[in-house]
Amino acid sequence: NILKVIEQNENQPQPLKGKRILITAGPTKESVDVVRYFTNHSSGKMGYALAQEAKKLGASVTLVSGPVQLDPVPGVEVVQVTTADEMYEAVIDRFEEQDMVIKAAAVADYRPKDAINQKLKKKDGPLVLELERTKDILKTLGEKKDHQYLVGFAAETNDLIHYGRQKLEKKNLDAIVVNDIGNQHIGFQSDENEVHVLTRSGQEKALPLGSKQDIANQLFEIFIEDMMGETN
Amino acid sequence: NILKVIEQNENQPQPLKGKRILITAGPTKESVDVVRYFTNHSSGKMGYALAQEAKKLGASVTLVSGPVQLDPVPGVEVVQVTTADEMYEAVIDRFEEQDMVIKAAAVADYRPKDAINQKLKKKDGPLVLELERTKDILKTLGEKKDHQYLVGFAAETNDLIHYGRQKLEKKNLDAIVVNDIGNQHIGFQSDENEVHVLTRSGQEKALPLGSKQDIANQLFEIFIEDMMGETN
Repeated sequence: NILKVIEQNENQPQPLKGKRILITAGPTKESVDVVRYFTNHSSGKMGYALAQEAKKLGASVTLVSGPVQLDPVPGVEVVQVTTADEMYEAVIDRFEEQDMVIKAAAVADYRPKDAINQKLKKKDGPLVLELERTKDILKTLGEKKDHQYLVGFAAETNDLIHYGRQKLEKKNLDAIVVNDIGNQHIGFQSDENEVHVLTRSGQEKALPLGSKQDIANQLFEIFIEDMMGETN
Repeated sequence: NILKVIEQNENQPQPLKGKRILITAGPTKESVDVVRYFTNHSSGKMGYALAQEAKKLGASVTLVSGPVQLDPVPGVEVVQVTTADEMYEAVIDRFEEQDMVIKAAAVADYRPKDAINQKLKKKDGPLVLELERTKDILKTLGEKKDHQYLVGFAAETNDLIHYGRQKLEKKNLDAIVVNDIGNQHIGFQSDENEVHVLTRSGQEKALPLGSKQDIANQLFEIFIEDMMGETN
């Protein structure tokens, strides 16, 4: 019943009360022309689960979301974006006031160099598409950060720990969550996940298969402990 | 009430009774690597509306559908596909026994030449992606057809009638439905549409803005009349 739910919520410890957390989720879409675009298999589920968990733990949560097919998270401010460029602007604009930023979105690394406003006409034979790098949001945050606890995600098919540790160092992160996307049963579209977490402070934990909500819960336990440790 | 609905359905004329119709709908997805892919803005709504209408008019309907976020159409056989290649196979395999084929799907014209099984590693600077043409389903059907009434769709930003007529001739179609995708208010993701219909027999009709269900209804009126006219 409702009273019980309120009671439970009141009894729920709120270690993130007073904290501002920004989470990014979902894919981005990069236009080739008015019809065609480039994107990726991110469903946004992991980011939305993290936003829900952060809210439950008492934080003020902003979710910067690419185009996804998910219900909004009650009590969480959502900023809708489509392209990598829009996501960059939305995140950088709000970075200063955050205590924690978790970049769970699968932002396009590349976009077509010259998106056209008409529809590309078909030709016989092959076509060469020139792609350019989008701005690296996580790297920019790593360079700008002063007090923020910064978490990245990595999706790897091989050498998970090696590439994860490398990315953590290179982007100046506090923690990184590594997805094994070589494993067909988990990740992107799935409701479940199984990840490795590495922290700057040297922790390395494997979180076994669980719902994305469970994984989100365990991730926050690790981040909060690590963040508190750092400030002591 | 229910009785009234049944009565209406029984009184509904069924000019397509005994006919087999195959309709394609939605986009296709073409992998760049295990994470990234190429697709387009097709929602599948127009194709699903056509399938529903064909069913209502008494036809045996097969819907070959790319990945969409739509509810299945009751009483319609659905064949789910992801890539242009899969759609080609699904349609060609079933072409012989059809009386009418409507290709409403927005099949990718190009796909990455070498999709890779790992995740593409980021590099500094631009990237060149080689694309190759997918097999042209509509053209193949136009070459193979003997008794089938064949309908194509065209999405154009300019010179609608010119490009529509050209495509009708080139692909040996019986009719073509031209969408003006330069008009932001209609088409792809919208529940409404506004189209031009051209037939091989020389008809040219503009169907003004209406729900995709209304448009589907009017399109079948034109196709049925045209098909009957042809066989007389």
